[in-house]
Amino acid sequence: MKNSSDVTELQSQVEKLQQETRKLLLEKRRLNALLIITRSLSGELDLENLLFKIMGQVQKALHAERCTVFLLDELKNELWSKVAIGIEDEIRFPADKGIAGYVLKSGEVVNIHDAYKDSRFNPEIDKKTGYRTRTILTLPLLNKQNEVFGVFQVLNKKEGIFTPADEKLLSAIAMIASSAIQNAQSYDEQKKSFFSFIETLSTTLDTRDYITAGHARRVTLYAQEIGRLMKLDPARMDVLRYAALLHDIGKIGVPEMILFKDRKLTNEEYEIVKRHAKITKNILKKINFNKRLKDVPEIAGSHHERLDGTGYPEQLKGEQILLEGKILALADTFDAITSRRQFLDRMDLEKVIQIIDSETGTSFEPYVVYNFKYITLDRLIQILEHGHASEINPEDLKKLIDYTLRELVEIRGKSGKSDDELEIENIFMRYYLRQYRTDR
Amino acid sequence: MKNSSDVTELQSQVEKLQQETRKLLLEKRRLNALLIITRSLSGELDLENLLFKIMGQVQKALHAERCTVFLLDELKNELWSKVAIGIEDEIRFPADKGIAGYVLKSGEVVNIHDAYKDSRFNPEIDKKTGYRTRTILTLPLLNKQNEVFGVFQVLNKKEGIFTPADEKLLSAIAMIASSAIQNAQSYDEQKKSFFSFIETLSTTLDTRDYITAGHARRVTLYAQEIGRLMKLDPARMDVLRYAALLHDIGKIGVPEMILFKDRKLTNEEYEIVKRHAKITKNILKKINFNKRLKDVPEIAGSHHERLDGTGYPEQLKGEQILLEGKILALADTFDAITSRRQFLDRMDLEKVIQIIDSETGTSFEPYVVYNFKYITLDRLIQILEHGHASEINPEDLKKLIDYTLRELVEIRGKSGKSDDELEIENIFMRYYLRQYRTDR
Repeated sequence: MKNSSDVTELQSQVEKLQQETRKLLLEKRRLNALLIITRSLSGELDLENLLFKIMGQVQKALHAERCTVFLLDELKNELWSKVAIGIEDEIRFPADKGIAGYVLKSGEVVNIHDAYKDSRFNPEIDKKTGYRTRTILTLPLLNKQNEVFGVFQVLNKKEGIFTPADEKLLSAIAMIASSAIQNAQSYDEQKKSFFSFIETLSTTLDTRDYITAGHARRVTLYAQEIGRLMKLDPARMDVLRYAALLHDIGKIGVPEMILFKDRKLTNEEYEIVKRHAKITKNILKKINFNKRLKDVPEIAGSHHERLDGTGYPEQLKGEQILLEGKILALADTFDAITSRRQFLDRMDLEKVIQIIDSETGTSFEPYVVYNFKYITLDRLIQILEHGHASEINPEDLKKLIDYTLRELVEIRGKSGKSDDELEIENIFMRYYLRQYRTDR
Repeated sequence: MKNSSDVTELQSQVEKLQQETRKLLLEKRRLNALLIITRSLSGELDLENLLFKIMGQVQKALHAERCTVFLLDELKNELWSKVAIGIEDEIRFPADKGIAGYVLKSGEVVNIHDAYKDSRFNPEIDKKTGYRTRTILTLPLLNKQNEVFGVFQVLNKKEGIFTPADEKLLSAIAMIASSAIQNAQSYDEQKKSFFSFIETLSTTLDTRDYITAGHARRVTLYAQEIGRLMKLDPARMDVLRYAALLHDIGKIGVPEMILFKDRKLTNEEYEIVKRHAKITKNILKKINFNKRLKDVPEIAGSHHERLDGTGYPEQLKGEQILLEGKILALADTFDAITSRRQFLDRMDLEKVIQIIDSETGTSFEPYVVYNFKYITLDRLIQILEHGHASEINPEDLKKLIDYTLRELVEIRGKSGKSDDELEIENIFMRYYLRQYRTDR
């Protein structure tokens, strides 16, 4: 009897222990999964990358077909999300629409077993994407002040419906993801503030003189176009953009009396104007740019250097000039000679090309000029006419899209032009030679 | 027989299960501790707060007396750490010194059972702080590129020595902490770039004219001093600092011919100069300031508003002017009337105070003026003489520290002055009335 009761007791003990072990094992797996997700999110400050990472991890952890993170755009009162379907990279809708809108407002967790039977469900996105939603688990994302700033939405559990365990796991992930998203948003905001300040400043400085109005912006656009054609990586494109916007900031240090003089400058005055390049570099060197942007002062300060060492301020030669500086030099000159001056039309296109060509190898790096000529005419017109976008016919741009500057020059010099070629030439030259009142 | 073998088997099964449960329970606790640490770190982008949080959490999790996070300062090749002992808030030493230096270089985990028996141990910090180090666990912090950028150092396990389990736990925490630290560093860098750009810009604009050189910086220092005396919270102090540095940025939009004219301005010219306040606001409004800084344009643009509604550009009255705008108005005027003008000494101190007093209640908010007069004379001289710090005798500053502007005015008007009072007056006025060549 004693033995048999021992056995029963032991058996029940084994059973209890087995149960506990199973529970602990599940709990351990859950915690491990959470830690893995945390690690993968924790290093990411780029909002777009972070959102894609979160969506991928949640989808996997919950055995679902899809996960979307919707964030609230307070200004527009819309919910938006990054998507990677088709050509669109973002979806947006009013912040009170659909299940997501309901969760945003109520702060509740919503677990739906049949979407099309729920009146709150908004079938429009399904219609748009051709997707068929069945089950939905939606959860609010809370900030430090416990306000809802977005929602997690997980669609179509691969087997069955979303369980309470899924809800618990998603809640834990949401806590981690919320912090990561908010860090990325803060970083993003800070970056945008900095950049918008630089943009505003360069535009303001430009508009001091209507002759150079828009110069910094156009130089930036030309430089970025050349950078794209040369396939620079994103970090160098960033450096190029900052340096282009700021290349003339040193003009703050040149007296306006000289800078805006409408007669020819004396030699002494010209020497004073030339100081702006050095001043640009000095001003920018005082800024604690981060590692990624550390070459901005050097590059911005070198936009008047020439390949053959006859430029200024440092008479740098060939390899001594950074590639981005060479791109700026071309962009700066091209804009200077294609801008409309007081009461004057633009310079003849042939004359422009002749100047660029004759200085290729002496002022300009041949490879940079070579790439620049592959700029398509639609982009070129958009930059030349920057600030007049509304006056450009979109149909014209569509026609120009297949032709490059190189081809335009060829067409211009040709005697027997095809009808297509004639049309392209006419469209381009119509914009190029347009008359404006520049004395606004 | 069968029963007894059953019992033995079951007993061994129970034992095995108990062992497994214990192991799982420990593992679960470890993972849970990690997750709690993760959560507490994940929302923190402020580097200083983050480091203190990490040190606190690690100390607790490892049952140690102390934890220090040392970070590598690449520029100076030093290791540094935030500390909260005594008056110092930072310790620094050469990056190759001590156990921390060894771990930084080798990337190894070092677990020491008796610090003073280890030749790599640097006892200098113990000497300085009066602490007695016994056991040390030190671990490298790795960035995304797997380079060591800092070290974790945990001191004096409360019972016994640091175990392999401690090493494992610390490694896991280090992974999480590394990401958090790097995020905070990136954010910090970005913030510093932005701020240094604003500082550089405002200084550059100032130095266009030697008469106003240093104005923005001094106005910022006065404004911050008033803010401190009024006990503004850190967020408002930040807004005040940005607005002060940028308050005159709109002068970019005023022609230098008028701005720097050395004769009296005509009425028309004066109207053009007055536009700068509105332009400041317009420029700053284009910047995507983050939420915390959203009032900067409004405040910077209101530095010429007067309490009674007779200021510009918007003739705001009383409560319509934000407090920070009122502080700026006083700081701006005070600097304008106490600055040295071309070949001229400063205005008489009595005259300065008379102007301020007579405009209190009409131009200036009484409570702001009231607080400003509690500025101590050492601070006041340092701001008045900003840019000439090396010419100020530190002994003089020490004497001025106990007297405020309010008291100085009283002493100046008094007939029977004590020796102390006479000395204070003499010291202050010696600096106030110093002669400089202003035509550098």
